[in-house]
Amino acid sequence: MEGVDHLADERNKAEFDVEEMKIVWAGSRHAFQVSNRISRLVANDPIFEKSKRAVMSRKELFKNTLKKSAHAWKMINELRLSDEESIRFRSFMDQPGFVDLHWGMFVPAIKGQGTEEQQQKWLPLANNMQIIGCYAQTELGHGSHVQGLETTATFDPQTDQFIIHSPTQTSSKWWPGGLGKVSTHAVVYARLITNGKDHGVHGFIVQLRSLDDHSPLPGITVGDIGMKFGNGAYNSMDNGFLKFDHFRIPRDQMLMRLSKVTREGKYVASDVPRQLVYGTMVFVRQSIVSNASNALSRAVCIATRYSAVRRQFASQNGGTETQVIDYKTQQNRLFPLLASAYAFRFVGEWLKWLYTDVTQRLEASDFATLPEAHACTAGLKSMTTSATADGIEECRKLCGGHGYLWCSGLPELFAVYVPACTYEGDNVVLQLQVARFLMKTVSQLGSGKAPAGTTEYMGRAQHLLKCRSSVKKAEDWLNPGMVLEAFEARALRMAVSCANNLSKFENQEQGFSELLADLVEAAIAHCQLIVVSKFIAKIEGEIKGKGVKNQLKNLCYIYALHLLHKHLGDFLSTDSVTPEQASLASHQLRSLYSQLRPNAVALVDAFNYTDHYLGSVLGRYDGNVYPKLFEEALKDPLNDSVVPDGYHEYIRPLIKQHIRSARL
Amino acid sequence: MEGVDHLADERNKAEFDVEEMKIVWAGSRHAFQVSNRISRLVANDPIFEKSKRAVMSRKELFKNTLKKSAHAWKMINELRLSDEESIRFRSFMDQPGFVDLHWGMFVPAIKGQGTEEQQQKWLPLANNMQIIGCYAQTELGHGSHVQGLETTATFDPQTDQFIIHSPTQTSSKWWPGGLGKVSTHAVVYARLITNGKDHGVHGFIVQLRSLDDHSPLPGITVGDIGMKFGNGAYNSMDNGFLKFDHFRIPRDQMLMRLSKVTREGKYVASDVPRQLVYGTMVFVRQSIVSNASNALSRAVCIATRYSAVRRQFASQNGGTETQVIDYKTQQNRLFPLLASAYAFRFVGEWLKWLYTDVTQRLEASDFATLPEAHACTAGLKSMTTSATADGIEECRKLCGGHGYLWCSGLPELFAVYVPACTYEGDNVVLQLQVARFLMKTVSQLGSGKAPAGTTEYMGRAQHLLKCRSSVKKAEDWLNPGMVLEAFEARALRMAVSCANNLSKFENQEQGFSELLADLVEAAIAHCQLIVVSKFIAKIEGEIKGKGVKNQLKNLCYIYALHLLHKHLGDFLSTDSVTPEQASLASHQLRSLYSQLRPNAVALVDAFNYTDHYLGSVLGRYDGNVYPKLFEEALKDPLNDSVVPDGYHEYIRPLIKQHIRSARL
Repeated sequence: MEGVDHLADERNKAEFDVEEMKIVWAGSRHAFQVSNRISRLVANDPIFEKSKRAVMSRKELFKNTLKKSAHAWKMINELRLSDEESIRFRSFMDQPGFVDLHWGMFVPAIKGQGTEEQQQKWLPLANNMQIIGCYAQTELGHGSHVQGLETTATFDPQTDQFIIHSPTQTSSKWWPGGLGKVSTHAVVYARLITNGKDHGVHGFIVQLRSLDDHSPLPGITVGDIGMKFGNGAYNSMDNGFLKFDHFRIPRDQMLMRLSKVTREGKYVASDVPRQLVYGTMVFVRQSIVSNASNALSRAVCIATRYSAVRRQFASQNGGTETQVIDYKTQQNRLFPLLASAYAFRFVGEWLKWLYTDVTQRLEASDFATLPEAHACTAGLKSMTTSATADGIEECRKLCGGHGYLWCSGLPELFAVYVPACTYEGDNVVLQLQVARFLMKTVSQLGSGKAPAGTTEYMGRAQHLLKCRSSVKKAEDWLNPGMVLEAFEARALRMAVSCANNLSKFENQEQGFSELLADLVEAAIAHCQLIVVSKFIAKIEGEIKGKGVKNQLKNLCYIYALHLLHKHLGDFLSTDSVTPEQASLASHQLRSLYSQLRPNAVALVDAFNYTDHYLGSVLGRYDGNVYPKLFEEALKDPLNDSVVPDGYHEYIRPLIKQHIRSARL
Repeated sequence: MEGVDHLADERNKAEFDVEEMKIVWAGSRHAFQVSNRISRLVANDPIFEKSKRAVMSRKELFKNTLKKSAHAWKMINELRLSDEESIRFRSFMDQPGFVDLHWGMFVPAIKGQGTEEQQQKWLPLANNMQIIGCYAQTELGHGSHVQGLETTATFDPQTDQFIIHSPTQTSSKWWPGGLGKVSTHAVVYARLITNGKDHGVHGFIVQLRSLDDHSPLPGITVGDIGMKFGNGAYNSMDNGFLKFDHFRIPRDQMLMRLSKVTREGKYVASDVPRQLVYGTMVFVRQSIVSNASNALSRAVCIATRYSAVRRQFASQNGGTETQVIDYKTQQNRLFPLLASAYAFRFVGEWLKWLYTDVTQRLEASDFATLPEAHACTAGLKSMTTSATADGIEECRKLCGGHGYLWCSGLPELFAVYVPACTYEGDNVVLQLQVARFLMKTVSQLGSGKAPAGTTEYMGRAQHLLKCRSSVKKAEDWLNPGMVLEAFEARALRMAVSCANNLSKFENQEQGFSELLADLVEAAIAHCQLIVVSKFIAKIEGEIKGKGVKNQLKNLCYIYALHLLHKHLGDFLSTDSVTPEQASLASHQLRSLYSQLRPNAVALVDAFNYTDHYLGSVLGRYDGNVYPKLFEEALKDPLNDSVVPDGYHEYIRPLIKQHIRSARL
């Protein structure tokens, strides 16, 4: 059966140009070509084989990461890959490792917070990987609340050094990836203390290990924090702990772009605007949103293909059993996730534009749009990562029992993905930041300061507070204006309602604490509106390729209407839609599912994932699932022998026992 | 710091008698005493140590299961434990293994489906573990749809044997626990064929392996299906595959209680009512609901204790940071899960009563209540297991970053638990069974046949279709009658609305297919009503102990009102409550959270779990989390050496490289 495409029938049903959709998904023809070429380069290299990760011991798995990283570095250099290509290369390698933090956090921290001089000294070393760095911020007892960090960096004017110290056990650095076993250096965040005064948390470049024999330097205790969620997954990474015992570094290793300490120990703020750090935050979070669409689309690709392969229960006209994907219950869970993957793709694309816009404004010292951009990226990071984590697990369940097998790819995808809900801002904490911004925006309505960007709709509060949805028939829910207005009315009314409830408290902070749960819901409503509006903007733009736009329209309305159904309580309690209009939306949604159905497999083909990258027997391109499940099973070490190790010690004595008296 | 109780302050706050609550939780003083004694017996035995499971290879982990199982068997016999005590013993062992299926499925299948004669022959062997059995039903290509199984058992009159055969690859048995490496026997489900006629799926006792050397018998191919979700978790179990090549068994190994094949090959149904099998189903499902409350309460115990230990962000009056459990966002996610654990406990208790009732009726050949009991257990199995799986993951997230560590206990608890959503009936398929039953009940309203049991409320349809909630102030939501009526109105109206929509279709089956998603929601509404009503019944009964009843009341209303908020769309669109009433419910809910807060740690102490059973550094009884996290980290094999294996091959060459040209 090798070489047969078991999903050929499905692919023949597609009503759109899949090749053009691949380009839409990738963002541009160039991006498609890079991804396409690099993903195949990685997939065809046996060093990057992934299928044995689950049965590797921790040490083997970690060593495997070292091997892959070294090989990747060799390839990247030999092939003289560009930065864009190198990033893609590491991403398709699909194994968390120290290089992620070196390139993703250590180098950017030096670029963003180091002076020109510091950059000239450290970046060439880091860019050549002659030093390997990580990002040591969180501590055993301190996560989201960065200002609560306990590590100290005390300036010693006698020696012109900082003394880095961990005063308590909870001040130990804990979690930084790449720290445990690999990094030679770290950007360490510590409380800066000069002349007995605490200036708050600052970053320092600290060497941790000898460049000769890799042993930790005196005064440094460093190690791995142990096993994490899942098999394989992040256990390939050496997340580490780090304790300092009065460890000294030269003064010039404080990252001094924003503020510095002079030879005399004087603390001086530079004239570089502090807002610059927000630019980096916008960049990091837009990449997290892009990753969300990657991760969710992988899960959806697996679940969609396997739902087309798998059959359960006889079809009404007898004969073979029905494809699982034909059940409305399956469609109702799967298709909104497929739509979400596309939705997050396009909002991620828009965030790339936002980052460019923010950067240009920062360069022109225009900080006016920054709070809005910051709130928007915080909220979208939170909303898309939560939805993706839940969505991956839902896709696993949509694959039935076999989704529980490691070789389905979904358990590991879930375990690898879920930290995204916690890192770079806990998702609940982030929504509260959004809520604070929304409350501020509401309080300023009518003050003459018009809300801009993603809060522009709040400027139309008067209309949105009293408007009534004009949806009269199911097809009206395909009208972008009517959909948008319902989402805008819901978001605005929830925000205004929160603001009204807050105003009843004498103490605003106490009111905020009391209403936290409602505020989170209002923030989520705002974020969902952003995603819906960016998806609508996408389908209103020019899109090439036969039938492509039509498919994206279906996906856009599936995304919006399933949200409307899921959060119906919000829409009804704010009177943004009536129960009858909601019922029309459900009706329209079912019709959209039927229209999507014949295109489902082609819509996940458009992600253009290699079988290597997917790493799933259930999601194989050719749909040849069952024989391959057997092949995978036979690889398990337990199948090395027919009679298992332990038989003679523990099974045979049981069967041959003579302890009967007690049981009979 | 050893021996210090870091949670003592929390325990001193409790406003109720924790010892009495332990008895309520256990179900009786006797049940408490058994659990208390047996759990400590297991916890204190070093053989049952669990903390190294994550770093064991698959083979080591499996062998560790064999060792623990053999030791448990020895202890159970030496201590002459009763059946009740043995079951508890295996449960506190907390490691999935072949014995679960031997006792939980193989023995009950023989008891339920074997004739007296068959029971006399096989049960002593099984009860002594002289044979070890499993339950071989699902096939590679066939799960929920039992009637679609492909394995055949063809009667051969010449030899008086059945020929068991796997005609295709998809007919291979796949998933049965204990099958892969341990079981000597299996109850195998196969299509019975006599004289060329297919009589559907029946059970057969089949010997798989030699009792002398454990090698598979000729004609049998058997092995392990490979790694599953998570580290440790179900990888301790040998879920297996099994193929038959015209394998022969004697005729008397067909389980013949319900029907038999004569020496001449004639198929004869016995006079034992087929409904008896439903009794077993009710039993199995009630135990799954009990397990749901076990699993959820473990996760909640961990998250609650750690939320009291963990501090983030400064409190308003300065000083130490605020305990995470004091944040309303945390309470809003955690406390409803705590309430759910109690709710599932009590509905599980009620299901035990239902099983006794069903059994008595079956013995009196009264089958009238069976369809209702069947629908009810199917729905509760589905609803509680889905909520528990989601709840465990939510508890993990509520522990912040450290919840991602394996030693938090939550990743493994999740991985071990999630199969419950799939086994013994896929959760969506089960809700559709409930929906079918509800649609039938609605169609018979007015026919004079009064709905009974958990559908009794549907008999009050006339009232429930037109009643309006009389809630006027927040405290009204503590009135059991008003809460019940809102849930009854919502459930009934959703069911009636589905029935109305169904009636618009000419073809009922086609309508059912089209409306599957709505039907599932109606079924869930019905199941939630059952849980709420049984919780209310519990708090209306006699409950001893200072303050105990008061705590249970709080939990009951938290459970009900958080459901009301979560499914607000249902309540509003059916007009069962108004937006104003919903807002009062949210207000009341916040007030209940404040009342619960000082009792939170004591309410999870009432579960009486040992640190061994919890298996979580974050959930330690003494709250001494941070030093113990370090101890756990140091156990990881990666920390055996300071300089990791792989340094010389892969890290040093990188740092010492001279490939600069390409990168600079």
